[in-house]
Amino acid sequence: MATQASAAIDFDKNGGIIPVATIDHATQRLLMLAYMNLEAFEETVTSGRACYFSRTRNRLWRKGEESGNFQVVREIRIDCDNDTIVLSVDQVGDGAACHEGYQSCFFRRLDKDGWRVVDERKVDPAKYGPGYGHPTPSDGGRR
Amino acid sequence: MATQASAAIDFDKNGGIIPVATIDHATQRLLMLAYMNLEAFEETVTSGRACYFSRTRNRLWRKGEESGNFQVVREIRIDCDNDTIVLSVDQVGDGAACHEGYQSCFFRRLDKDGWRVVDERKVDPAKYGPGYGHPTPSDGGRR
Repeated sequence: MATQASAAIDFDKNGGIIPVATIDHATQRLLMLAYMNLEAFEETVTSGRACYFSRTRNRLWRKGEESGNFQVVREIRIDCDNDTIVLSVDQVGDGAACHEGYQSCFFRRLDKDGWRVVDERKVDPAKYGPGYGHPTPSDGGRR
Repeated sequence: MATQASAAIDFDKNGGIIPVATIDHATQRLLMLAYMNLEAFEETVTSGRACYFSRTRNRLWRKGEESGNFQVVREIRIDCDNDTIVLSVDQVGDGAACHEGYQSCFFRRLDKDGWRVVDERKVDPAKYGPGYGHPTPSDGGRR
C-alpha cells in the first residue's frame, strides 16, 4: 500500500520533500508542520507511526524517538495538488507535539503588541534531557 | 503592526516564502496549505483578508479574487521555529477553500486501495469560469 500511495505524491515540486500538517485526531487541532521525503512517508504508512524528514538534521525523524511523544496515525489525507499531506494522529506520551512542551507548535498568537504566548505548556521539555528538540534562531534553542 | 510582526518570521529558511496552514475558525478544520512571502504576509495583516504568494504564478494571490471565496482572517499564529504561520479564517462565498469546489483541499483519504475522495463537493468550480484555479499535474487542471 505504501508504494502505491507514494507514487501519487509530487515529491519533485519541492526538491524531494513535502510539507506535512499533523492534526489531533480527536479535536482536529493543528499540532505541527513538518516535512517528509519518500522514505519517511512509506515508513509512516507501514509502521503506523509518524516519521518525518528533518531538514536540520538531514535524516529521518521518528517523532517521539527521544521524548516518547510519538504519534499514532489514524488517517492520512492528500491535497488537490498531490503535494501536501495531512496526518491525523493520536499524540501519545505527554500530549506535547511541540519540542517546547506545548500541545501544538502554534502556541503564539499575533496581537497588537506582536506574537504572544496564549497556550499553557503541557510539560517542561527539560525532562527529556539537554539534547532534546531542535534549536530555534530566536532563542538559542530553549525557551 | 504588520512590519513588527513580520520581522520575527524566518523567511530566509525556505527561500523567501513560508508555508501557511489555513484553518476554519469555527471548526478548526484544516482547509488548505499555501505560501506567503513578506509582502503577502503584511498585506494579510493590514487588510484582514488572506493573501498568499502563488509559486506557480510567481505573484501575490488574493484568495477569492476570481471566485469570491475570500477568507476573513480571525487569528494568526506562528510556530516555535518562526517559519510557519496558521491563519484562522472565516471562509466566505461558497464555503469552498479548494479550487476543486471542496470545503478543504484535503478531500482524499488513504485507504487500502489508494487515495479516495471522501468529502462532498460544496460547489462545481465550473461556475467560476474556465480559467479558474490552478492546474494540477495529475489531471490537467480539472477533475
